[in-house]
Amino acid sequence: MHSTEPRTIWWDEGLWLIDQTQLPERYIPLKIESIRQLVAAIKSLSVRGAPALGAAGAYSIALAAERSHAGNAFDMIAELEVAADMIRRSRPTAINLSWGVDRALREASEGESIDEIRERALRSAEEIAEEDIRINHAIGRNGAKLLEDGETILTHCNAGRLACVGWGTALGVVRSAAELGKRVQVFACETRPLHQGSRLTAWELKEDGIPVTLICESMSGSLMRKARIDKVIVGADRITRDAVFNKIGTYNHAVLAKHHKIPFYVAAPLSTFDRMNGEEEIIIEERDPEEICTLGGVRLAPLGVDVYNPAFDATPLDLVSALITEKGVFRPPLMPPI
Amino acid sequence: MHSTEPRTIWWDEGLWLIDQTQLPERYIPLKIESIRQLVAAIKSLSVRGAPALGAAGAYSIALAAERSHAGNAFDMIAELEVAADMIRRSRPTAINLSWGVDRALREASEGESIDEIRERALRSAEEIAEEDIRINHAIGRNGAKLLEDGETILTHCNAGRLACVGWGTALGVVRSAAELGKRVQVFACETRPLHQGSRLTAWELKEDGIPVTLICESMSGSLMRKARIDKVIVGADRITRDAVFNKIGTYNHAVLAKHHKIPFYVAAPLSTFDRMNGEEEIIIEERDPEEICTLGGVRLAPLGVDVYNPAFDATPLDLVSALITEKGVFRPPLMPPI
Repeated sequence: MHSTEPRTIWWDEGLWLIDQTQLPERYIPLKIESIRQLVAAIKSLSVRGAPALGAAGAYSIALAAERSHAGNAFDMIAELEVAADMIRRSRPTAINLSWGVDRALREASEGESIDEIRERALRSAEEIAEEDIRINHAIGRNGAKLLEDGETILTHCNAGRLACVGWGTALGVVRSAAELGKRVQVFACETRPLHQGSRLTAWELKEDGIPVTLICESMSGSLMRKARIDKVIVGADRITRDAVFNKIGTYNHAVLAKHHKIPFYVAAPLSTFDRMNGEEEIIIEERDPEEICTLGGVRLAPLGVDVYNPAFDATPLDLVSALITEKGVFRPPLMPPI
Repeated sequence: MHSTEPRTIWWDEGLWLIDQTQLPERYIPLKIESIRQLVAAIKSLSVRGAPALGAAGAYSIALAAERSHAGNAFDMIAELEVAADMIRRSRPTAINLSWGVDRALREASEGESIDEIRERALRSAEEIAEEDIRINHAIGRNGAKLLEDGETILTHCNAGRLACVGWGTALGVVRSAAELGKRVQVFACETRPLHQGSRLTAWELKEDGIPVTLICESMSGSLMRKARIDKVIVGADRITRDAVFNKIGTYNHAVLAKHHKIPFYVAAPLSTFDRMNGEEEIIIEERDPEEICTLGGVRLAPLGVDVYNPAFDATPLDLVSALITEKGVFRPPLMPPI
């Protein structure tokens, strides 16, 4: 049933993805012809969102196998390892990316011939993609129980179907609640500097007919103070044993939610959990200063100004009311079983 | 000594102001030929910032008097009252605007001839402008005592010399500290949607040679958590008996500062205080949704999406560590004497 849903990334005689940099103007598929092009697509956020990056990581192995000219299984696996390394390094903070790469690489490496390696790599990627949709529906079902009819949700960045293969994590919860007949509405934070909230989240919810109001993230506190937000739900790029790494700005909303005694939920699949590491071990990616300094050819800041542009922040688990996963809802310090 | 400083608004055979919508690309004076043009300049934020609007309000009366074709004092005062009303309504939340309008109008209305009205209106506006610079230097001196050598300040929007006739309120404090030889540095929040932080604050501090790093407002919390912010200083558009009205996003920083036990200071002249009203009485201006939906011809949100775009928020005084005024530093619930 889920496989007929629109997908963000898929295989059809090659690797395809929705080019998210084109939204909200155009919803267009982009064919990925090489690992180098996929690395560029990941870095430019043509494909982004932790679960979607998990699938992209796995498909990268299928793509590398398809494009390989290796004459034997040993050489092909060596090539896949090089491709895997390039992909893993393209966005180091997102754990799902290396999770997807590693899982498909492990499966592919068990192949004994070139053909078998290709087949196993693609099968692994397709499994991860199908699984992602099933998992997101489970997250949605589990999270929807936390939402009441008539509630208003604040979300940040995009943790919708575009951030996944389909359905979504944080927006999957909203979508599942709406499917159950609960009238929920959403305030979507635009999410500077790359506007995933306005370009993607507002677009998705509008397509779904779920009431959405766009705000700047700076407006979240005053809305909470006016009691116009019932719950905050965000996704995650990595959950260590002590913190949730997610789009920069998430931490501000978490502190504001605590101050206003509003539940703060994180919706993410188990593949986002990193039990090996604590917050201190994780390097937060810093992005190009130009993302903040210019837009559409307009200069927004003086030339040569110093800029700090981290892609993510860390929210300590004690600010998280619950982790919504495919295995159920866990209230920290409780964590889902491995 | 202060009158040789660059001014944001001045009279030189007519009313001139720095067109702030042109920054950071161009620093250019704009001659204002009519009240209608001044209303447009105020609404488009060509001139903005509470103290600068106070002066603009006063100069609007001088401009209306200069341009009037009234044949007698009675008719001229009636014309000035119409102009005053148009100007007051152009940005209702900023109290200084109507304060400046009212003060110049009161002075002008005591004139008994057309010439005397013109002269009194202009003299009143010039007095307010000169006074604003003196007041900002006093705010700077008073606030500079709160800053230690080596400290890092977070600020939001622009409360610099561009927001005033000269020197600045929040940035005036930073500037005065730097003048005393304290090595201070600033994180400037870009301030969506109109980027007064990146376009104006970063530009001003760079011109002054005060170290400045541009961030998105969503990054304030994670910087505080990493102990990289020592103090927050912002300006104000209106201070009622219970709350500080300032650029949207100020409240978020105030809650975050409290959570991290960082002092949160508001720097403003006495003309910003509104002792007649409480927070509930003040209407917060909502601005054009397009400010959030497009930039430089780039569409950032789907067509027709609902948008909430308040220009200001209210920060209750219990989150304010101190009010820095020309009469000294007051720790709420203490307020400056009238």
